[in-house]
Amino acid sequence: MSAPYKIYLEEDQIPKKYYNIRADMPEQHDPLLNPATGQPATLEELKSVFCDELARQELDTTTRYFDIPKPVLEFYKMFRPSPVIRAYNLEKALGTPAKIYYKFEGNNTSGSHKLNSAAAQVHYAKEQGLTSLTTETGAGQWGTALSMAAAFFGMDLTVYMVRASAEQKPYRKAVIETFGAGIVPSPSNTTEVGRAILKEHPDTGGSLGCAISEAVEQAGNTPNCRYVLGSVLNQVLLHQSIIGLESKAALDSIDEYPDIVIGCAGGGSNLGGLIGAYMQDSLKGKSDTRFVAVEPASCPSLTRGRYVYDFCDTGKITPLARMYTLGSQFMPSADHAGGLRYHGMSPILSKLYHDGYMEAVSVHQTKVFEAAVMFAKHETILPAPESAHAIRTAIDEALECKKTGEEKMILFGLTGTGYFDMQAYSSYLEGVMVDYVPTDSELEIGFSQLPNIA
Amino acid sequence: MSAPYKIYLEEDQIPKKYYNIRADMPEQHDPLLNPATGQPATLEELKSVFCDELARQELDTTTRYFDIPKPVLEFYKMFRPSPVIRAYNLEKALGTPAKIYYKFEGNNTSGSHKLNSAAAQVHYAKEQGLTSLTTETGAGQWGTALSMAAAFFGMDLTVYMVRASAEQKPYRKAVIETFGAGIVPSPSNTTEVGRAILKEHPDTGGSLGCAISEAVEQAGNTPNCRYVLGSVLNQVLLHQSIIGLESKAALDSIDEYPDIVIGCAGGGSNLGGLIGAYMQDSLKGKSDTRFVAVEPASCPSLTRGRYVYDFCDTGKITPLARMYTLGSQFMPSADHAGGLRYHGMSPILSKLYHDGYMEAVSVHQTKVFEAAVMFAKHETILPAPESAHAIRTAIDEALECKKTGEEKMILFGLTGTGYFDMQAYSSYLEGVMVDYVPTDSELEIGFSQLPNIA
Repeated sequence: MSAPYKIYLEEDQIPKKYYNIRADMPEQHDPLLNPATGQPATLEELKSVFCDELARQELDTTTRYFDIPKPVLEFYKMFRPSPVIRAYNLEKALGTPAKIYYKFEGNNTSGSHKLNSAAAQVHYAKEQGLTSLTTETGAGQWGTALSMAAAFFGMDLTVYMVRASAEQKPYRKAVIETFGAGIVPSPSNTTEVGRAILKEHPDTGGSLGCAISEAVEQAGNTPNCRYVLGSVLNQVLLHQSIIGLESKAALDSIDEYPDIVIGCAGGGSNLGGLIGAYMQDSLKGKSDTRFVAVEPASCPSLTRGRYVYDFCDTGKITPLARMYTLGSQFMPSADHAGGLRYHGMSPILSKLYHDGYMEAVSVHQTKVFEAAVMFAKHETILPAPESAHAIRTAIDEALECKKTGEEKMILFGLTGTGYFDMQAYSSYLEGVMVDYVPTDSELEIGFSQLPNIA
Repeated sequence: MSAPYKIYLEEDQIPKKYYNIRADMPEQHDPLLNPATGQPATLEELKSVFCDELARQELDTTTRYFDIPKPVLEFYKMFRPSPVIRAYNLEKALGTPAKIYYKFEGNNTSGSHKLNSAAAQVHYAKEQGLTSLTTETGAGQWGTALSMAAAFFGMDLTVYMVRASAEQKPYRKAVIETFGAGIVPSPSNTTEVGRAILKEHPDTGGSLGCAISEAVEQAGNTPNCRYVLGSVLNQVLLHQSIIGLESKAALDSIDEYPDIVIGCAGGGSNLGGLIGAYMQDSLKGKSDTRFVAVEPASCPSLTRGRYVYDFCDTGKITPLARMYTLGSQFMPSADHAGGLRYHGMSPILSKLYHDGYMEAVSVHQTKVFEAAVMFAKHETILPAPESAHAIRTAIDEALECKKTGEEKMILFGLTGTGYFDMQAYSSYLEGVMVDYVPTDSELEIGFSQLPNIA
């Protein structure tokens, strides 16, 4: 084994610029719409929700590279470059001729890639002179990441945490509080949206869409405050492009290039970030790499959703985005473990998928946890359930290579670690985990409430 | 800032040999004694408890370096080299002229340095043809590390987990089970020792010493099985020497050498491993580095214990070791959070301390958590409570430098991460954490039950 297990770039090799994939897309996704006017959301309108620089980034389709601000680069040095790792021991256990690499983004206290965008977003807000931020968190990775960045840059932060998650994951909540952020279980009585939802569903465990509505409303009612979001948005994919750029630089250093790039897909932050640098080559006709989005069978926005305009939140107060969606009122089953529970999908990724540049598969969660346990035993990293979706498909592709004898190079994104997901692991180990898959008529309910826009 | 935040050696720079500090000690510690005969424990006697190679390592005072077996080196490549990190942001927050470095051993799923010795111990057992192992775990780091190594090398493992810990940390338990090990909350009715303790104290939460007794007994009653221990023993300090060797190689690469080396001290596995390579220089008169052991004020074996022969376990079935001890019947207060709760201390470290080569301080846990939260906010790593003892003292030394203007170089061991310790963090944040310090008369109870050996 001449190539190392882990490839760490030097600190001065951390990418200095974010890559904006829109500059290379043959066609742009349809614009965000202001639901009040039905017209494309303007920069000024976005600035009332997001801080100025992030609003600019959200709409920019032509600037190919954005300089990473120096304070953000310095912050990154505490946990980046993250390693690209060759899964030698998993390959051996599978007996596959395929080469399996993974980009590991879990080696920081947030336990995921979310810290990449959190640092950028807090920095831009700070630079604008804002003093506080609001956000939502579901599984808790984004809330943790943002609390870390807020603590570091000195910014007040209120996190609307999906109530069910806050109750099931008291330790995740405690980590966020350790970094000094305030937590409000959502829905709450601190917002109009929250009060309305509580009135109708007093016992609800909440949803990501509902927590987004509350955080946006709260930001609007607080002086010198903006809302920030950890996925779905173009600005987030921009910041997360560092994952793909860094992994490409690392693989270049050992003359490797992936035949297949695999990422788990919830709102698309990791997947979009991971594939960016490789998709650039593909869009320019320089490679024929396959790109595979992996989503839960219980929340299948790409594989069973519709490509239409929809609200980004349950409370219907955000702009409308054209994306693959299960409908903003869709709630994944309580049997669904882990994240990847957003009803929609990044407009950029939706467009790439719609135009045939990317594939998507959905997987059952018991098969996901089977892959997670196998991976943990052979590679000694306990993966987040989200990341284990990508592991599942990487293993399936490697087993296919075993059949065909092909020596494909597979790269997948290991977005994070599973320390806060042990309830789900236990339910898998105890054999009580259920593979919930919504029926067509259940999905139809979500579709029936889509806004009526051509 | 020219020097990087993180120094990662290349994989081929992982040390190839363990360093046995005993080969350089001016005087050896007193030998282990067989309690039945009062005579030094023989190799054959130790082989009935430990696997052959580990028994040999336990008694070897002259072999300076032991080759690290190739399969163990390959295993290490999944998580080593671990980084040496410059705490630039902590330094800035403190306004100290001191340079603060830390060796971070928490970047693996066990969340601590314990995996270094776990891999070696499982490998040696496997090579001898053993099929199963038993051990104990308190806070859970050692149990997790051993379950990872056992899963990888294909070895059955039963972990006696201190009952209070198994109940307080169900997720730690779930991680160990994910890696396929069996968990028995201790005391249990699976052993004579356990049944006797349960008869006397039916509601006890257990102790590390008691779990050790059960694991040793169980190993003796199981064919082709041995007991393994994650701290205290000479063999463990030998394996953990990789921490110091690797950190020295990393610091050599940027021409740095510590004026002070600081480590938390429970049984001594991290501290002994961290200081080894530097202590070698010191013992040879090549440096005047200070070595500081940091222990909890609630379990102060070095600073308030006695340097006498004592049992290593509560059930009094292990050999006797001469060490600093609070007495094998000492139980830390329920107010004590985190690990570092062993009644004794590594015989090697006890000897070095007794002979004046090392200092020791004890710290109160609210001050420890204060340091932990400050470290997390500025360095973005959530430390284990154990590790935070070293952080506390590193900060105190850095603040002292601020007073004197000295530009000392401080190196401390960040042994692990705190994801499974959020109950303790919460109790600190909520202001309900208590600083328990045993009174002299409370300690006297433990001392009164020491074995009567000159």
